[in-house]
Amino acid sequence: MAELCVRSVLVTGANRGIGLGLVQHFLRMPKPPQWIFAGCRDPTGPRAQELQNLASKRPNISIIPLEVANPTSIKAAAAKVGEHLGGSGLNLLINNAGMVKLNTLDTETLEDMSEVYTTNTIGPLLMGQAFLPLLKKAAQGSPGSGLSCSKAAIINMSSYAGSIKDMYVWDFGQVVSYRCSKAALNMLSKCQSLAYKEHGILCVALHPGWVQTDMGGSEPPLTVDDSVQGMLKLLSSISEKETGTFLDWEGKVIPW
Amino acid sequence: MAELCVRSVLVTGANRGIGLGLVQHFLRMPKPPQWIFAGCRDPTGPRAQELQNLASKRPNISIIPLEVANPTSIKAAAAKVGEHLGGSGLNLLINNAGMVKLNTLDTETLEDMSEVYTTNTIGPLLMGQAFLPLLKKAAQGSPGSGLSCSKAAIINMSSYAGSIKDMYVWDFGQVVSYRCSKAALNMLSKCQSLAYKEHGILCVALHPGWVQTDMGGSEPPLTVDDSVQGMLKLLSSISEKETGTFLDWEGKVIPW
Repeated sequence: MAELCVRSVLVTGANRGIGLGLVQHFLRMPKPPQWIFAGCRDPTGPRAQELQNLASKRPNISIIPLEVANPTSIKAAAAKVGEHLGGSGLNLLINNAGMVKLNTLDTETLEDMSEVYTTNTIGPLLMGQAFLPLLKKAAQGSPGSGLSCSKAAIINMSSYAGSIKDMYVWDFGQVVSYRCSKAALNMLSKCQSLAYKEHGILCVALHPGWVQTDMGGSEPPLTVDDSVQGMLKLLSSISEKETGTFLDWEGKVIPW
Repeated sequence: MAELCVRSVLVTGANRGIGLGLVQHFLRMPKPPQWIFAGCRDPTGPRAQELQNLASKRPNISIIPLEVANPTSIKAAAAKVGEHLGGSGLNLLINNAGMVKLNTLDTETLEDMSEVYTTNTIGPLLMGQAFLPLLKKAAQGSPGSGLSCSKAAIINMSSYAGSIKDMYVWDFGQVVSYRCSKAALNMLSKCQSLAYKEHGILCVALHPGWVQTDMGGSEPPLTVDDSVQGMLKLLSSISEKETGTFLDWEGKVIPW
């Protein structure tokens, strides 16, 4: 299997959990990206300390202030990333930032439904729009006619909990606002795959596994390392055949 | 096939299109409901004239002011319906109110995504919560242990455009905010079916067909009458086997 080989990548929600794991694994690659943009809501806050430490030692990491629920913040981030890249494009956009509210169907509210949807679904839509010019540029600058993550791709971090058919771990947590936002994110990923194919951009929805993070808790069976390793191996192998699909960290197709 | 036989029904967005068609068809039944609650955002406005005319002639119609994007309005409507019903429950809640914004992926905005989601997805969630006591009461008051629309049911008016697998009429209209909201509504319907089954409430997502309405335009092949007739026939026949599914107006299963 070919190694994933990207010159530039942006990861949202990069200060902890899977986002931070992705940044760390990109750094450890035999041929790491020239630019790793680590999007983070509050880069100077206490929850970004580990990312700050990492970035202070590695010049190819740029921490980008980014609030994916805020269009102005997204536009500013796109401008900043564009400046860093000079004339180059962005190969890989990983929409990883997400949130969950531990509600049941009975306790959901308009406010929680809105907040979760804005971060988990609208955020990735606006990110795709704002970074489209840079993704297009990367696709145009890459050889070959097929789609690949080394060329230009949007990876939306979804969840098996967004599978309407399987209703993964329903008895463990109803989290209706989360499930609805992820089902909608899967739809968005499909829309992006159809609309951006002509620009040479691959789009998939990924389930990272149920991972030991602040969001996932300590119960899950999977470590961040195992999940991220699996996903990066997967990203190195997918092509136009997989655009618009919903895959888990091992490459298994998940039903909508 | 058994005739649909409900004592009480609430239809949201009942002043025009499919909502008004449903009210008209309920009135024409051999044994019409004793209470038809017609939810309508602006009951005294010019767009509710036809519904007003109908209600003035038929004492079993009660027009209920109802804005499904507003929790306060929903609570007031539930209280009003409860008063009308005295001690009886509500058999059938039809979450029909919905909206569309004719955007492409490129032209979607945070505001449009939020507005469409609030009306099309959060609205049906809040309606289910607010009317749950009345639906439970109807289920408890009905004989038999199975699920049926004559007993207690929530019908969410979804759309084939919300099928992530099939991406119905994508080339005709991308309408990303609408598709995302309907995929999320399908997820909500599944959640409701799982959570409300123990209360004896059937829940399905319905695709009414592509119908000649203000929303659907004049191109579609299906009249409101044909769609409504098909749906009411379908509602008379579904049971616990169908709860949590996504069906079209003829009863065909649509993939998520």
